[in-house]
Amino acid sequence: MIPVLDANADTLHGFFDRDLPPVVTVDPGTTVRFRTLDSGWSAGPHTGGERERVPEHAPGMGHALTGPVAVRGARPGMVLEVRIDDVVPAAWGTTYAGARRTAWNARLGIEQPAVLAWEIDVVAGTARNQHGQSVATRPFLGVIGMPPAEAGRHSTVPPRWHGGNLDCRELVAGSTLYLPIPVDGALLSVGDGHAAQGDGEVSGTAIECPMDRVDLTLGLRDRLFGNLPLTTPVARTPAGWVTMGLGDDLDEAAADAMDAMLDVLVALHGVGRSDALALASVAVDLRVTQVANQTFGVHAVLPPGAVRG
Amino acid sequence: MIPVLDANADTLHGFFDRDLPPVVTVDPGTTVRFRTLDSGWSAGPHTGGERERVPEHAPGMGHALTGPVAVRGARPGMVLEVRIDDVVPAAWGTTYAGARRTAWNARLGIEQPAVLAWEIDVVAGTARNQHGQSVATRPFLGVIGMPPAEAGRHSTVPPRWHGGNLDCRELVAGSTLYLPIPVDGALLSVGDGHAAQGDGEVSGTAIECPMDRVDLTLGLRDRLFGNLPLTTPVARTPAGWVTMGLGDDLDEAAADAMDAMLDVLVALHGVGRSDALALASVAVDLRVTQVANQTFGVHAVLPPGAVRG
Repeated sequence: MIPVLDANADTLHGFFDRDLPPVVTVDPGTTVRFRTLDSGWSAGPHTGGERERVPEHAPGMGHALTGPVAVRGARPGMVLEVRIDDVVPAAWGTTYAGARRTAWNARLGIEQPAVLAWEIDVVAGTARNQHGQSVATRPFLGVIGMPPAEAGRHSTVPPRWHGGNLDCRELVAGSTLYLPIPVDGALLSVGDGHAAQGDGEVSGTAIECPMDRVDLTLGLRDRLFGNLPLTTPVARTPAGWVTMGLGDDLDEAAADAMDAMLDVLVALHGVGRSDALALASVAVDLRVTQVANQTFGVHAVLPPGAVRG
Repeated sequence: MIPVLDANADTLHGFFDRDLPPVVTVDPGTTVRFRTLDSGWSAGPHTGGERERVPEHAPGMGHALTGPVAVRGARPGMVLEVRIDDVVPAAWGTTYAGARRTAWNARLGIEQPAVLAWEIDVVAGTARNQHGQSVATRPFLGVIGMPPAEAGRHSTVPPRWHGGNLDCRELVAGSTLYLPIPVDGALLSVGDGHAAQGDGEVSGTAIECPMDRVDLTLGLRDRLFGNLPLTTPVARTPAGWVTMGLGDDLDEAAADAMDAMLDVLVALHGVGRSDALALASVAVDLRVTQVANQTFGVHAVLPPGAVRG
């Protein structure tokens, strides 16, 4: 019997807060099953009118998160290992564009709001919208994170070095995400299901959907590579090693992502930092994670086998 | 018999200049074969000492370019269609890191220069360096471009809306690059062979190599999509449609790339601009092209079949 966290009044919250009591405390190595709402607390699929939200929603809430889960023995400075075993979306999702006036939308000349209501075929792995356009699904959670060490309620919107609204499309099932732990017990919360998203999340939303089932196995490590403290999110995914940079602009985020990727190359290939940069120039891909979350994201990808020897 | 441009005193130049006479003038639809030096005018593989350059190199020269080729009937405002039929590297290449003091290198703590000397196995499609590390090759030209409309010599370093040092790793054989034409005759020059490069070209160089053979078929079009004037580089590649943004920083480049991608989605799927942005958020990938060339690049990729209907 694995612990199951439904999305209900016991588990739902729309902020990060280290003082929010955990719903459950588990030993390292435990698999936990989560159910999550869509990011907007929707009670059901978009039908054209005002969205109905679940009663648990309250004004000022951010993404609908399920949790927190405490991990026994987790301490600040350690690494939380989140193995993503399974991610199964619900049968519907929604994408918005132009809903907010942002510099990005203004720059792109987006003056009308648009809503795409998607029906998701979980077995076929496709989603089809009301205009008849279809895309392949590639489900992942936008938010996997822990509360900041500082007391009080914190917004769910900006991604942080200890996770949160990372919106990295590579975090599909089969991935393991490594996050620096900011608080005792780790206190992991998850949500913001995305049935599909491109690198950049350029409208500010993906296919926002509830997740019927997300199985995560939570482990603890002292370090990820050698004696090097982990300071940013790193993942091993089907697309390869992924290091995530966060910043006020894409340039800062890109430098952070590459900085962390050089650590990976040094650890994996036993090279110096300058040789690592030369190898990265040849074999590592820098991609825009998202331009949607106040703090921007860029991730670096080292595909499997891209550098041998 | 297709026109063949060797890399010699008749064809080599290290700048863009609309008044440099074309080596050959061809009709639209002609395939031209180019040979190119590596970007640094090297006379042969790196052997550890000072690089020897070909005698055609002169101080102040940028990338070693082969050309120009004039296309009969090309006029400013038209679209040059560059079909990339074949790209075959020489047997060696070089990657540098930390050779220059840049803000990016300082940010990454790169204090030592590094040189990777690669042996390229063209048949196997691999490159192996002096430390025994190997990577898969994926050859393309870093520079495909035309001179600015303004008279005089222009640096080869910054990419421009009419091409040049784009350094986009997706421009492999099988791609067609569409460029707005700035000058009568188009006056295409090419060079800067890359045997392999990651998105970002983060050390400032790829596997810099001569190309033994590059076959390009040069066409002319009035427009790319409908009546819309083309204003930035766009390509159809094995990875999908690619739109390229250029800017003083990555944020500006990202917005330019997405702006052009919305035009593509509007043209291909008959949707409005807001719906196009929503579709892009789900199905388009924003990637860092390069952080190496003064003007930064971001490209947007719409993979084949990513949006159906």
